[in-house]
Amino acid sequence: MNKQELKELLDKVSSGQISCDEALSVIRTEPYEDLGFAKVDHHRGVRQGAAEVIYGAGKTSEQIEKITVSMLNHGESSVLITRMSSDAADFLKNSVPLKYDTLSKIGIAGEVPQNNNIGNIVIASGGTSDIPVAEEAALTAEFYGNKVSRLYDVGVSGIHRLMDNIDVISNAKVIIAVAGMEGALASVIGGVADCPVIAVPTSVGYGANFGGLSALLSMLNSCASGVSVVNIDNGFGAGYLANMINKIGE
Amino acid sequence: MNKQELKELLDKVSSGQISCDEALSVIRTEPYEDLGFAKVDHHRGVRQGAAEVIYGAGKTSEQIEKITVSMLNHGESSVLITRMSSDAADFLKNSVPLKYDTLSKIGIAGEVPQNNNIGNIVIASGGTSDIPVAEEAALTAEFYGNKVSRLYDVGVSGIHRLMDNIDVISNAKVIIAVAGMEGALASVIGGVADCPVIAVPTSVGYGANFGGLSALLSMLNSCASGVSVVNIDNGFGAGYLANMINKIGE
Amino acid sequence: MNKQELKELLDKVSSGQISCDEALSVIRTEPYEDLGFAKVDHHRGVRQGAAEVIYGAGKTSEQIEKITVSMLNHGESSVLITRMSSDAADFLKNSVPLKYDTLSKIGIAGEVPQNNNIGNIVIASGGTSDIPVAEEAALTAEFYGNKVSRLYDVGVSGIHRLMDNIDVISNAKVIIAVAGMEGALASVIGGVADCPVIAVPTSVGYGANFGGLSALLSMLNSCASGVSVVNIDNGFGAGYLANMINKIGE
Amino acid sequence: MNKQELKELLDKVSSGQISCDEALSVIRTEPYEDLGFAKVDHHRGVRQGAAEVIYGAGKTSEQIEKITVSMLNHGESSVLITRMSSDAADFLKNSVPLKYDTLSKIGIAGEVPQNNNIGNIVIASGGTSDIPVAEEAALTAEFYGNKVSRLYDVGVSGIHRLMDNIDVISNAKVIIAVAGMEGALASVIGGVADCPVIAVPTSVGYGANFGGLSALLSMLNSCASGVSVVNIDNGFGAGYLANMINKIGE
Amino acid sequence: MNKQELKELLDKVSSGQISCDEALSVIRTEPYEDLGFAKVDHHRGVRQGAAEVIYGAGKTSEQIEKITVSMLNHGESSVLITRMSSDAADFLKNSVPLKYDTLSKIGIAGEVPQNNNIGNIVIASGGTSDIPVAEEAALTAEFYGNKVSRLYDVGVSGIHRLMDNIDVISNAKVIIAVAGMEGALASVIGGVADCPVIAVPTSVGYGANFGGLSALLSMLNSCASGVSVVNIDNGFGAGYLANMINKIGE
Amino acid sequence: MNKQELKELLDKVSSGQISCDEALSVIRTEPYEDLGFAKVDHHRGVRQGAAEVIYGAGKTSEQIEKITVSMLNHGESSVLITRMSSDAADFLKNSVPLKYDTLSKIGIAGEVPQNNNIGNIVIASGGTSDIPVAEEAALTAEFYGNKVSRLYDVGVSGIHRLMDNIDVISNAKVIIAVAGMEGALASVIGGVADCPVIAVPTSVGYGANFGGLSALLSMLNSCASGVSVVNIDNGFGAGYLANMINKIGE
Amino acid sequence: MNKQELKELLDKVSSGQISCDEALSVIRTEPYEDLGFAKVDHHRGVRQGAAEVIYGAGKTSEQIEKITVSMLNHGESSVLITRMSSDAADFLKNSVPLKYDTLSKIGIAGEVPQNNNIGNIVIASGGTSDIPVAEEAALTAEFYGNKVSRLYDVGVSGIHRLMDNIDVISNAKVIIAVAGMEGALASVIGGVADCPVIAVPTSVGYGANFGGLSALLSMLNSCASGVSVVNIDNGFGAGYLANMINKIGE
Amino acid sequence: MNKQELKELLDKVSSGQISCDEALSVIRTEPYEDLGFAKVDHHRGVRQGAAEVIYGAGKTSEQIEKITVSMLNHGESSVLITRMSSDAADFLKNSVPLKYDTLSKIGIAGEVPQNNNIGNIVIASGGTSDIPVAEEAALTAEFYGNKVSRLYDVGVSGIHRLMDNIDVISNAKVIIAVAGMEGALASVIGGVADCPVIAVPTSVGYGANFGGLSALLSMLNSCASGVSVVNIDNGFGAGYLANMINKIGE
Repeated sequence: MNKQELKELLDKVSSGQISCDEALSVIRTEPYEDLGFAKVDHHRGVRQGAAEVIYGAGKTSEQIEKITVSMLNHGESSVLITRMSSDAADFLKNSVPLKYDTLSKIGIAGEVPQNNNIGNIVIASGGTSDIPVAEEAALTAEFYGNKVSRLYDVGVSGIHRLMDNIDVISNAKVIIAVAGMEGALASVIGGVADCPVIAVPTSVGYGANFGGLSALLSMLNSCASGVSVVNIDNGFGAGYLANMINKIGE
Repeated sequence: MNKQELKELLDKVSSGQISCDEALSVIRTEPYEDLGFAKVDHHRGVRQGAAEVIYGAGKTSEQIEKITVSMLNHGESSVLITRMSSDAADFLKNSVPLKYDTLSKIGIAGEVPQNNNIGNIVIASGGTSDIPVAEEAALTAEFYGNKVSRLYDVGVSGIHRLMDNIDVISNAKVIIAVAGMEGALASVIGGVADCPVIAVPTSVGYGANFGGLSALLSMLNSCASGVSVVNIDNGFGAGYLANMINKIGE
Repeated sequence: MNKQELKELLDKVSSGQISCDEALSVIRTEPYEDLGFAKVDHHRGVRQGAAEVIYGAGKTSEQIEKITVSMLNHGESSVLITRMSSDAADFLKNSVPLKYDTLSKIGIAGEVPQNNNIGNIVIASGGTSDIPVAEEAALTAEFYGNKVSRLYDVGVSGIHRLMDNIDVISNAKVIIAVAGMEGALASVIGGVADCPVIAVPTSVGYGANFGGLSALLSMLNSCASGVSVVNIDNGFGAGYLANMINKIGE
Repeated sequence: MNKQELKELLDKVSSGQISCDEALSVIRTEPYEDLGFAKVDHHRGVRQGAAEVIYGAGKTSEQIEKITVSMLNHGESSVLITRMSSDAADFLKNSVPLKYDTLSKIGIAGEVPQNNNIGNIVIASGGTSDIPVAEEAALTAEFYGNKVSRLYDVGVSGIHRLMDNIDVISNAKVIIAVAGMEGALASVIGGVADCPVIAVPTSVGYGANFGGLSALLSMLNSCASGVSVVNIDNGFGAGYLANMINKIGE
Repeated sequence: MNKQELKELLDKVSSGQISCDEALSVIRTEPYEDLGFAKVDHHRGVRQGAAEVIYGAGKTSEQIEKITVSMLNHGESSVLITRMSSDAADFLKNSVPLKYDTLSKIGIAGEVPQNNNIGNIVIASGGTSDIPVAEEAALTAEFYGNKVSRLYDVGVSGIHRLMDNIDVISNAKVIIAVAGMEGALASVIGGVADCPVIAVPTSVGYGANFGGLSALLSMLNSCASGVSVVNIDNGFGAGYLANMINKIGE
Repeated sequence: MNKQELKELLDKVSSGQISCDEALSVIRTEPYEDLGFAKVDHHRGVRQGAAEVIYGAGKTSEQIEKITVSMLNHGESSVLITRMSSDAADFLKNSVPLKYDTLSKIGIAGEVPQNNNIGNIVIASGGTSDIPVAEEAALTAEFYGNKVSRLYDVGVSGIHRLMDNIDVISNAKVIIAVAGMEGALASVIGGVADCPVIAVPTSVGYGANFGGLSALLSMLNSCASGVSVVNIDNGFGAGYLANMINKIGE
Repeated sequence: MNKQELKELLDKVSSGQISCDEALSVIRTEPYEDLGFAKVDHHRGVRQGAAEVIYGAGKTSEQIEKITVSMLNHGESSVLITRMSSDAADFLKNSVPLKYDTLSKIGIAGEVPQNNNIGNIVIASGGTSDIPVAEEAALTAEFYGNKVSRLYDVGVSGIHRLMDNIDVISNAKVIIAVAGMEGALASVIGGVADCPVIAVPTSVGYGANFGGLSALLSMLNSCASGVSVVNIDNGFGAGYLANMINKIGE
Repeated sequence: MNKQELKELLDKVSSGQISCDEALSVIRTEPYEDLGFAKVDHHRGVRQGAAEVIYGAGKTSEQIEKITVSMLNHGESSVLITRMSSDAADFLKNSVPLKYDTLSKIGIAGEVPQNNNIGNIVIASGGTSDIPVAEEAALTAEFYGNKVSRLYDVGVSGIHRLMDNIDVISNAKVIIAVAGMEGALASVIGGVADCPVIAVPTSVGYGANFGGLSALLSMLNSCASGVSVVNIDNGFGAGYLANMINKIGE
């Protein structure tokens, strides 16, 4: 049930077509379906303006399938699945239409949503190894209809590669900065941009990067204003938040 | 120099009133004044849409005064100073008009900006001890003309206090969640809101909070979507980012 | 030897049927059997009111078998084995009757104890991936005869799923809250329940969860009263402690 | 409003003396009083069976006074205040009757509750320096009417001091083990007791104790069953939980 | 060259049989053989009273073989090899006589040294899973001719198992306490013994043991006197040091 | 009661002068005196061959005085007090004879024990700032009658200062290596000595020494054999253990 | 484009052969080639005096090949590839001439550069297991034409092995000290050398080395002057920096 | 004794003016003077080409004075003292000529060395609060006769401030990059410079900077080549190393 559907329901109440109790009962019973191992939330469309997403890691192929099918059966036209193994994708393809990207491990079940090219989200990555995380962010943002510009391999060790793209940065409505190692990309972009910057530390690196800790701390301590941080390797979280911000004012 | 002033300069170039080189020279020489110990950035109004802010911690009263005066002399009508001791505030009052808030340690030199009541930023805090950080965020946001709604002491150990204010949360354009200890407030708000949530971990607590680490990790691992995190106790950063997001679409 | 048997022995001493020294010798020689690599404790039934449990991790199939057989031969009717690989379970089935649960990796050798449906232990989990730990707790509690109610996938990012089950929580005598990521579930439950809450952080998550550290710190810093914490992923410990608490007053 | 008062209110509804709406309005408006900096929760007596407690650290003397007075004015006969400085205690004594303990920094405002000597809570501490935390636990438990037995300075480096008190441990309904340094006390007690053990790590020690981390990790990894852990130095939390457990079955 | 041989050489100098320079040249050229990837130290018998030991981890089978052969060719009758994979052991058996223990991964090349049953080293372990580390210590101590008494599975969760062996502990000249999880064994033994206790934390455990950190910190913070600590899982180091201490006064 | 006194008591039992029960009662009642806040252990002379020591940190002057007097009244001729503030020392001097060293903060109450010049303990320190910890070790060892040789300021950055004293190191029976910063002293000494080396990391340093963590980890990972480690800044523990080792074979 | 080529270009500008704009356009368009997943930097020869290096870890064989070919096609005569798997090396050999070293995982594509035997870089390693990292440094330095002297297995536990090579150390222009475990080698060399020492901590070790943290902290806290540190296992970084330093003054 | 003096001594040996033994005796007895608490190293001028420096932190005013006087009496014309409190400086001025800088806490006793303006060391700092550390580096480098260029307050949040000084960076022989918070300055400078960059993390910042850890990790993980790192706040170490590098080739 999306906001429009909810609004129609409430209009019927307002006009006396259905009683308040009937409306409440419809809304209240809808929120989620209990699959035993998961409570699938069909109400999120109302509550947060976007259909629920399935976090594939730590779930069996069978669990992913059941949740996906439950969602599609409750009116979702498409479902985003993150961190899905290629094995799980192969399994899922037997039951539902699925588009799967091996690099970012993102799958889209059901219809691929139309891209509405809303606003402009710039996704910059420090190095080649950060691209899987950057793509997780990019595909998530595109799933929700946003226009995405990719600026890959513009890490600070060759600052001119970034400076040559200063116009791309200037035209962004929100920027996602994806970087491992020392994570300085977020600060440098934050210093030249005048829009919100979402920093995504990655676990790329070795030794004293301690699984992404170095980039994480670096980004949290950014001396540039307008920068906030999501979890290490959390491309989805950044893409989802960028979508939220990008659509403000549409 | 703000965007408007820059635009006028460029119009003169366009119409041939001044040459391109003259314009470049004006822009290029303006960016900062070198005080020796600091390079004051007068160009930020152009580059990022907001005047520079003085981070007062670790600066002497004399340094703060010199930077403030330099800014006011270069056309800023008001300057925001964060983490300023009351001693520094007393010192500064001798030179410039200053409004100082002892709780958040924020000072505003020059004219107090008019609040334009733009959008709606909700600032929620977990407990009474988190209020100084929450106020740093609130005063920063108000400095830039945003409308701010305060929801203090709504921590998750009494979840009904938060639930009773669900309408305030629903009407927010962006929410700042300030919490120490276990930092769960961000996840709970992130689960019910459908706007961006900026999480500010605080160092409030003791023992295994390790100076704010517990709240920081908790917020970074939030299972709610749309949540991003700034540094521990960084109320200013949250307020500044909230201002950026809130003004999108104005 | 259980408490009843011990009491009968001491009655015989009291009535002069056997001498004090004979009794002491019986008790003293019984405590454990030395298998070389392990000292099997047959006295725990007296000392702690529950038969010893075998922690299967880090033990070979042969070691598990020898300890199990030693216990069954000394009068235990059933033995609980935790963290047992399916290989070890297959091996053990050759020697003794065994019921094995692949999800929680718990095995019960000998007779499956009758469930006496004592009290009410509620086990809540944040997400689908936390279920193996939650089931380790649940099966442990059921092994000792407790009634267990499961509330799975009620994490705080969709707080209404938890709120809809507020009556289940209100009727609990003790609650086990199992959650990874930010571990906020314990605080939220602790805030609405008026019984002891045992929090189990899990290693579910990635990046800055640092193997369960985020949930652990979050739970230790809970601002709700009545919450205590066991080791990361320690479902058994929570189930065992819940059993102890639940049976007080029976 | 306690459970009894709530029950009477609902009985009136049931018998038609007051309408359902009137009752709801009474309950709903009662939960908390908003002091601006704090939302004082007067409903906790219903929700959790114990009046709210004031955590004094990080609050000004004035804030503590206002919250205390608000509580006493709403029908609480006595209020427990933890981590209150002696200065705050002196300030508070001007407004309300107060009993203050300098060692544990606990204050009781209003009437000192009658001790009902319910059950038996044993509080054991490793060394002399752990006593302030142990007393915080003890006074909290006594505030709620529990009988408390103190076993101080029984650390494991002189295990016979503990073993000489094995009968005290055997008769406990719940035990609180307070220890700094290596925190082994919890495991040793957990190994001989057959009741729940609440472990409280303290920050006592130096060097590699890292502010209580050594005792905390030690207690979380206890190989004894039935042990759970609260935050470093959290005597109040342990005393409150012990009260909850001790009263089960009363 | 051992101390006796060195003494004879110096006697010859003293009596004028050889010149000082000749003697120096003999000693100086002897210390080590350079294999390119390793400088094999044949002088250690003089310098430290015990032949060099090969740390097998991180060395190829070929490297281990070359170092072993170099040592045996320079007059060592037996060589101790620690942390050697069974593959490396199989490889080495082709060249030299080898006795290999799969549990502790210790190999002895050349003659197995005669055990002189010197003094008494007690090795206590907390649980069954700690035995590989305990055996590394035991076999090392026996290699150097010490008498070793093993006390396995006497962890503090069943303190009576340890107390029943108090006489074994009383008769020790030095004790090695091997334990994972909370590592409390070292403190308890340190509290009842009056000889040096070498504590070996192990990585046995899970969750908040953080690879042995919990036992390490616990042992470093031991409140018992006479306890010192070696690296996590360093059975060899403990056995070698126990040998040094045990032989003082022989 | 020391070993000699205990032996005489048991001889009386053996010869029938007193009954076994009388002897037991004497021994059993002696172990400790309960001062309420402390259980003073008068039996340690029997159990561990050395009188109890008072750890002064975290105890009030009054507590230290009461414990000291209790010990002197129970037959101890001298008592060692560590980490005692100069204020506590001044207070204590009113009641008992006291010798106090301001550098190491060690006090000796009662008679200063005669130094028997047993064996040879070498105490080496890396720098001038490590001397307080080194002196805590030295005075402790001298208290128990050991001969101590001091080698101060011989850190590895000027390795020749250490090498010039190679004969001092060669003649030691046990060596205590005290060092902060990188703590390399322990490894270098361990590589040239053929006796046990007790490493004491100190908190001397700044930045990435993290309160002594760098020296601690360095010493635990020493590639030299025969090295073990005590807590950061634990000079007493090292001196006590060195005494134990030094006296083996006397 | 190297410095010489750039100079010739600028000379042409100076003499009017080409316009400033043409020159700028040549320089500006040259910097990098965009392969989509990577921006290959052909300008580094100008900017930093050394051709770009390919960091092989985290790149597919195909990506490495494309970048290598792009570089060779743009005028590089040889390309250094670090952390390349042997599979990637086999793949790359199909397209370009490649010399591959399995120990250090370094590959050189194109012509092997002539070694000009410039200066003298000494590379010392603590143990046999550190050699792969040491060789990464050595081959990098040799790639750029430096003379390299290897001193392997000279760890501080046998300080005489290092002291015997004091002349090698005295003649170095820059020294690279590679060590795991306690990392003391850097301090000892720093204390005797009078040239810059680049310390490379390695992850060699176990237990409390925490993946190289012990050596890293040790080296950062070195009490010897003239020592700086690169990332754990970063042999390339050390070799590259040594090359920079070594060539100063050539 | 400096290199020149040593050379003259050896020339006398070579020409037979003094015997080899006499020369050795002079050299050997000179190395250090033992003050009891410190072994003052007068030989460092020979061994490392620079007089010893006194690290003032953790030393009493009296100790600093004695070491300084000892050095000046042994032929040093000037002595560098770091981290000296102003109290110690006042004390020292009574005995020796002293120039003291309050910002960096550096003192120069004896003659202020002539600055020879050798080479060019650039010292860049991120912010105003990093200046004390930067000045410690600058004054150290100037003490040894180097020319120093200061670039303060050029942090990456305003990258144009750094880019405007690209020519200063291009002309450096070695650069010291001093920065706290996210420490990105080192990477950005490392990416544009073609000389060695010494990175100095500072403890400037708050919250998740954890006392300089964020900048330290960031700098260690720098993706720019040619960057190495010294301890947090270690301005002296950077200045000393820069001096070493700068003088290569003079």
